[in-house]
Amino acid sequence: MPAVAAAVAADPSVRSPLPVLGRDVAVPLVTGGEVTYAALDYAASAPALQRVWDDVAAYAPYYGSVHRGAGYLSQLSTDLFENARRTVAEFLDCRVEDQLVFTRSTTDSLNLLAAALPDGCEVFVFETEHHAALLPWQRAGRVTFLDAPDSPAQAVATLERALAARDPHGPALVCVTGASNVTGELWPVRELAAAAHAHGARIVLDAAQLVPHRAVSVRELDVDWVAFSGHKLYAPFGSGVLAGRADWLRDAEPYLAGGGASRTVARRADGGVDVRWHETAARHEAGSPNVIGAYAIASACKALTEAGFDALAAREEALVRAVREGLADVPEVRFLSLFGEDAPRVGVLSFVVDGWNSSHFAAALSAEYGIGVRDGLFCAHPLVRRLLGGDTGGAGECGAPDAGALNAIRVSFGAGTPEEHVARFVRAVRELVRDGARWSYRTVDGRCVPDTSGRA
Amino acid sequence: MPAVAAAVAADPSVRSPLPVLGRDVAVPLVTGGEVTYAALDYAASAPALQRVWDDVAAYAPYYGSVHRGAGYLSQLSTDLFENARRTVAEFLDCRVEDQLVFTRSTTDSLNLLAAALPDGCEVFVFETEHHAALLPWQRAGRVTFLDAPDSPAQAVATLERALAARDPHGPALVCVTGASNVTGELWPVRELAAAAHAHGARIVLDAAQLVPHRAVSVRELDVDWVAFSGHKLYAPFGSGVLAGRADWLRDAEPYLAGGGASRTVARRADGGVDVRWHETAARHEAGSPNVIGAYAIASACKALTEAGFDALAAREEALVRAVREGLADVPEVRFLSLFGEDAPRVGVLSFVVDGWNSSHFAAALSAEYGIGVRDGLFCAHPLVRRLLGGDTGGAGECGAPDAGALNAIRVSFGAGTPEEHVARFVRAVRELVRDGARWSYRTVDGRCVPDTSGRA
Repeated sequence: MPAVAAAVAADPSVRSPLPVLGRDVAVPLVTGGEVTYAALDYAASAPALQRVWDDVAAYAPYYGSVHRGAGYLSQLSTDLFENARRTVAEFLDCRVEDQLVFTRSTTDSLNLLAAALPDGCEVFVFETEHHAALLPWQRAGRVTFLDAPDSPAQAVATLERALAARDPHGPALVCVTGASNVTGELWPVRELAAAAHAHGARIVLDAAQLVPHRAVSVRELDVDWVAFSGHKLYAPFGSGVLAGRADWLRDAEPYLAGGGASRTVARRADGGVDVRWHETAARHEAGSPNVIGAYAIASACKALTEAGFDALAAREEALVRAVREGLADVPEVRFLSLFGEDAPRVGVLSFVVDGWNSSHFAAALSAEYGIGVRDGLFCAHPLVRRLLGGDTGGAGECGAPDAGALNAIRVSFGAGTPEEHVARFVRAVRELVRDGARWSYRTVDGRCVPDTSGRA
Repeated sequence: MPAVAAAVAADPSVRSPLPVLGRDVAVPLVTGGEVTYAALDYAASAPALQRVWDDVAAYAPYYGSVHRGAGYLSQLSTDLFENARRTVAEFLDCRVEDQLVFTRSTTDSLNLLAAALPDGCEVFVFETEHHAALLPWQRAGRVTFLDAPDSPAQAVATLERALAARDPHGPALVCVTGASNVTGELWPVRELAAAAHAHGARIVLDAAQLVPHRAVSVRELDVDWVAFSGHKLYAPFGSGVLAGRADWLRDAEPYLAGGGASRTVARRADGGVDVRWHETAARHEAGSPNVIGAYAIASACKALTEAGFDALAAREEALVRAVREGLADVPEVRFLSLFGEDAPRVGVLSFVVDGWNSSHFAAALSAEYGIGVRDGLFCAHPLVRRLLGGDTGGAGECGAPDAGALNAIRVSFGAGTPEEHVARFVRAVRELVRDGARWSYRTVDGRCVPDTSGRA
């Protein structure tokens, strides 16, 4: 812990963590007593910022039906929802003519874009993507899966080669992550966007792991669309975002058929029904909007902007260094990386531990140290399998049910993470590797849990 | 107000309203001063139950990533999410073998079912449905739109006639509302389900307007699926539900492609990608689940069950009577109805006022009385147009931009509505009809609002 504090404090731009919900939650240890929970699974779902919660709590009594309600709270809620749209568009530095659709998540956003692809669209996506970015396209178009690159430059070269081979006259889309949900590594988005555009293709940025950690400018990156989730942006109220070019969205069938998306509906003389759909973002937002979810995202955007991404990123980089340096002399710990272990990354690191089953290791971090990490393949099976190679991460008595023996451990953090959590994580890993678990574990209902029969 | 209080108090089973958020919110009146806001647009979005809010607030610090997180809060959140699924299934009295999928809304639920229809499925739907129940089917199958019936018995006869004419060997689905979002009238769901099954068809119940007001038993009604929204069930956190038969859902392509829905994903030797999908509800829940939204719905289900639907319905029926009787001697007020003005209904009533544009009337209720109702066609254009006939609802200076001159006013309430709100509404309607508005109004940005230049 002193090492981590020193590493963080060495950077004068580093400030305190932003207050988040759950920062004082105590959890029991299997070895006795309680400890403050260390939430180190931000890459899956981050805790709500206290500011987001406070804003939602302040608004909740004023919640009302949006769009066509005549009452005061309905009009207030409608304004709040549309202001949230503007706030998020500003946060993303969207172009004036872009559309911003509130969805439920990144997965939903990318499925929406997949449903809006023009006929005959070719899609190019690296095998290294999260399943949400990897899988939606097969229903809609012809997909080319690109092999994992071993450097940012190779990613650009791989994409350029694939695009050069395509029919240059048809529509095409590239989908790429901004920061890997497995390795945390930053992808060369601007260069990939330039390559896409040079070959007449468009590009969508999966920013689920990027927006919580770095400023994202749609204009500067020159991406056509960006997608992200509220629950990774400290706003876990069921909303996500797809923002970008309006034309494909306007020309597509509405994502969901229903009220809100329909302007007019009328029976025809032949008994059928004619529908005129909206051409604004409402076209893809059928049903009552999730006002609280959208407002929560807008609140998070404001809070992060005010905190300043330069300071947030500097602090997070110090925490990443603390993890890397704190475990540098533990050869059993092997971090997963495509671009090299020292490549720039956000606060997301995956690793395996020689001699350990990853589920077992993660369970011990939880039960013996109160640390919440994630084990498995992180919804990015092709990437994690490639990174693991033939390495099983060692044997153990807990197996991941879906993943077979091959899985990994991921630690991830962000704006709300105190130094102590990272310090405790480093200490815990060192102790577990050196001394082994103090308790025995077994698999129950697919989870690796402490064996109630006692200590190891 | 005394009349309403008397009507309510006359029923000994009637109790106090359930506490909801916003019950003390004061809004300004254009005529000066403030008044407690009367939220009478429950049919669009109901306020959150205080109990739901308290449960969400108590859980929020414990929020964590669900499914594969190894930490204590992740496991707690996963359990909470799956327990919410069980609670809601019990609330709906589902069959043991049914699946319950958390969606984002009724619209989403019905679009999911539409995407899961077997090949060649015929769909039968009355033209009287909300657009969410009317429009999703055209993408997926051959739709027969049934004419509006003028009685519950005629609804059954109309459906039977249509089903008798279909190919008896192919799959078919009937979609029907439990309670109209326009008239509040109850539909003969059980009889329609029997008719559907007698002809080898299945039936889905749009219960968006029914579950907040009446106990719904999937078993007793013998419907194959039921769909509803959290935001109409006092749980406005972006979640909805589709529950029912597992087979069509299990056989369908996953609703969204992404993580959570995929069991395993692997590159093939030919460069493509193979996916194995889950066969549980997770198949249609790709992306991180909206845990807070699902938990909020479960909390509402518990609160309503504990309050007792018999008592809630009795109280609400007394409020409906108070509206009807309080305006019985105002001939300018005409309630919209398919089955007759005295047909059983939930707390949803639409009406027009002779000599008034409905938007103008609704704006005056808001600005001069602090009452929030809705004006328009309520996302049920064919039904409202049919009910309005050639009646324009009178002229006025505020026009509804989408609806042309033809629109209506809807007042709706539920478990959180105090008698005073309904009494104020009755008094306000009587005064406006008798004396006219005290302020002048004009249309700004599609909304009818008080003219800042002053009184009428």
